[in-house]
Amino acid sequence: MKPNFSLRLRVFNLNYWGIPYLSKHRVERLTRLGDFLNMESFDLALLQEVWSEYDFQYLKQKLSPTYPAAHYFRSGIIGSGLCVFSKHPIQELTQHVYTLNGYPYMIHHGDWFCGKAVGLLVLHLNGLVVNAYVTHLHAEYSRQRDIYLAHRVAQAWELAHFIHHTSKKADVVLLCGDLNMHPKDLGCRLLKEWTGLYDAYLEAQDFQGAEDGCTMVPGNCYVSQQDLELFPCGIRIDYVLYKAVSGLCISCKTFKTTTGHDPHHGGPLSDHEALMATLCVRHSPPQQDPSPTSGPAERSPLTSVLREAWSELGQGMAQARWWATLASYMIGLGLLLLALLCALAAREGAREVAILLWTPNVGLVLGAGVVYLFHIQEAKGLCRAHAELQHVLGQAKEAQEPDQEREAAPLQGLQEGEGLKEQ
Amino acid sequence: MKPNFSLRLRVFNLNYWGIPYLSKHRVERLTRLGDFLNMESFDLALLQEVWSEYDFQYLKQKLSPTYPAAHYFRSGIIGSGLCVFSKHPIQELTQHVYTLNGYPYMIHHGDWFCGKAVGLLVLHLNGLVVNAYVTHLHAEYSRQRDIYLAHRVAQAWELAHFIHHTSKKADVVLLCGDLNMHPKDLGCRLLKEWTGLYDAYLEAQDFQGAEDGCTMVPGNCYVSQQDLELFPCGIRIDYVLYKAVSGLCISCKTFKTTTGHDPHHGGPLSDHEALMATLCVRHSPPQQDPSPTSGPAERSPLTSVLREAWSELGQGMAQARWWATLASYMIGLGLLLLALLCALAAREGAREVAILLWTPNVGLVLGAGVVYLFHIQEAKGLCRAHAELQHVLGQAKEAQEPDQEREAAPLQGLQEGEGLKEQ
Repeated sequence: MKPNFSLRLRVFNLNYWGIPYLSKHRVERLTRLGDFLNMESFDLALLQEVWSEYDFQYLKQKLSPTYPAAHYFRSGIIGSGLCVFSKHPIQELTQHVYTLNGYPYMIHHGDWFCGKAVGLLVLHLNGLVVNAYVTHLHAEYSRQRDIYLAHRVAQAWELAHFIHHTSKKADVVLLCGDLNMHPKDLGCRLLKEWTGLYDAYLEAQDFQGAEDGCTMVPGNCYVSQQDLELFPCGIRIDYVLYKAVSGLCISCKTFKTTTGHDPHHGGPLSDHEALMATLCVRHSPPQQDPSPTSGPAERSPLTSVLREAWSELGQGMAQARWWATLASYMIGLGLLLLALLCALAAREGAREVAILLWTPNVGLVLGAGVVYLFHIQEAKGLCRAHAELQHVLGQAKEAQEPDQEREAAPLQGLQEGEGLKEQ
Repeated sequence: MKPNFSLRLRVFNLNYWGIPYLSKHRVERLTRLGDFLNMESFDLALLQEVWSEYDFQYLKQKLSPTYPAAHYFRSGIIGSGLCVFSKHPIQELTQHVYTLNGYPYMIHHGDWFCGKAVGLLVLHLNGLVVNAYVTHLHAEYSRQRDIYLAHRVAQAWELAHFIHHTSKKADVVLLCGDLNMHPKDLGCRLLKEWTGLYDAYLEAQDFQGAEDGCTMVPGNCYVSQQDLELFPCGIRIDYVLYKAVSGLCISCKTFKTTTGHDPHHGGPLSDHEALMATLCVRHSPPQQDPSPTSGPAERSPLTSVLREAWSELGQGMAQARWWATLASYMIGLGLLLLALLCALAAREGAREVAILLWTPNVGLVLGAGVVYLFHIQEAKGLCRAHAELQHVLGQAKEAQEPDQEREAAPLQGLQEGEGLKEQ
């Protein structure tokens, strides 16, 4: 790494909306996307919702002269939908699948079947280690009654934790993706506060694109106006976030979004807008470092958002346990009915009806059993994130009261105990 | 960190065999375990198979004066069974749940319900960052016909990868746990080669314990002699592994195992033997560093074990797809039968039988559907690890042929293409 060194990184991000047979003009949009990526020759192109591996293979083939390295992140039943194309060799790659990701019985929402994840690429550029993350969190289907809020907050925490633990030797950290959260949403604040990542839209020296940086806009012909009922100007749920370590200064020179049509004024590339950022990394004196990477729990806005997330996850745990309890009552009721049917079957008159009802009743007991197990697992997953947040909050408290360090141990014991009780 | 500094780390590991109502003398063993841990005052005590959170809470309470920090890793439906007790404050903690972990319909084996995982604790000891990992991999129920081999190899790879990505800033790495693999097994070799971890039993300057360091021995009254039929002297499946970064020298001064009874010649603490290691860390010139942490794929024994694992995962993928195909035939057959039953129900004579058979047939279709989805997910999980191994092997090849770097891109494309075909 030379002292006068500087690195320019051009990044593209798009939620491509590629559901086979369902997404409109999928093949035509894919062709135009490939042409555009080839023409622009970004350093990195990160995509979400590439649900068909054939679409990835098509792009891979088409982009291989410009982007020799590519990877498709496989997970769940359908897949994570995440993939990446890089002009530079990918040194390392891995992924983390989120513990919680909706409910299997919400088939019409489908998120559970996808195995939503975060993918990590490690690149070595001009002597710098660049960790690039791509992710897609659980969708928000109703803002007024969001039954997935606790899951999305848990995902945001896992994402923040994953970045924290895997980027300790990275010089530059980049996170792109569809977070399915508005900028002021709890999960988004938690992620930004914990990781210290900067929002390219807010930091950009030159911004061109949709009003307020929105990434789902009413002008896009694929966007249902019903989805934007509460936000007629659009919503911002796709992000480019970044930071650099001490000794490096990172800035966003330009940030662009498409505005309801492709960059050449053709039809839109997707129902989401594409994001394009140019980041510059150069040396700077360590004292000017704008991105604290250690001891974040000591900062007060973080403590407040951690508490908020802790409380939200607690509510989620209570909800999960409520469902598990309901399912256990259903199991009990089903078993009682089975016993009744056995008694009925012994009598001559009602034998036929009893035999007919036997199998659906067994189905009820089995179904309720599966629901019970699922919600027990959900409660465990939420409890895990809850306990991790509690550990971090405990540390923040200790940092604020260094003299009472000795007394912190019984408190920690109490915290673990609470976790058990809530289970 | 002082120049003449040295760190002594006393570590305890035990698979405690704590299945409520099933494991013999559980409560009595727990009491003795607590007494022993309190008396010995290790730096770290890492336990597996603590299936009941109440057992953890009991130990936590009992050990709190000696081990003020403790954590229970929650996951899956039953839990990971992992927990840790530390004399020193835990700075950070996280966990990773393995993507593949057996089959839900193998209820009598139960591993799938546990959510097997690896837990990570970060400790700061005398200015050193110590990353301590605790894990428990899928059990081996039959050595001759091990249907879980591909899952265990995938778990070993995920474990190695998790350690690699999360320990980049650690000075000392410690891994303890029940790997359910013999020392020469593929997964064990893969783990050791990829991470560069040393085996405390093999490296110990002073060893006391069971013959060949076995951790399941015939002398233990809880061990079924049938399980040791092929290995009458016992098997070694529990490990303490370690390494240190360049500039530090780590050695295992003493390594002890129990020998079928507790350290005071009472009954055994578990069906597994306990492991106790004393590790010493001191400064050493960087050139004497015995633990390479970067570019491991360039080493030849590693390349060979990576190829072996790649091939094993490929077989696992084929097997998973075979089951998915079988399930899809069952779905087809079930749907055909349903159509036949509809036709039969229209006739007067067979109506009763047709209605009776309708519901079990719907059950068959639904059941086969679930099996189909499960094996599709299994194939995706194996394919993910397979693709990661392929990426690493591709890099090793490039490192061996630096001049042909440009030509590597089409090869990489071919590899991704293969992944798709195999799906």
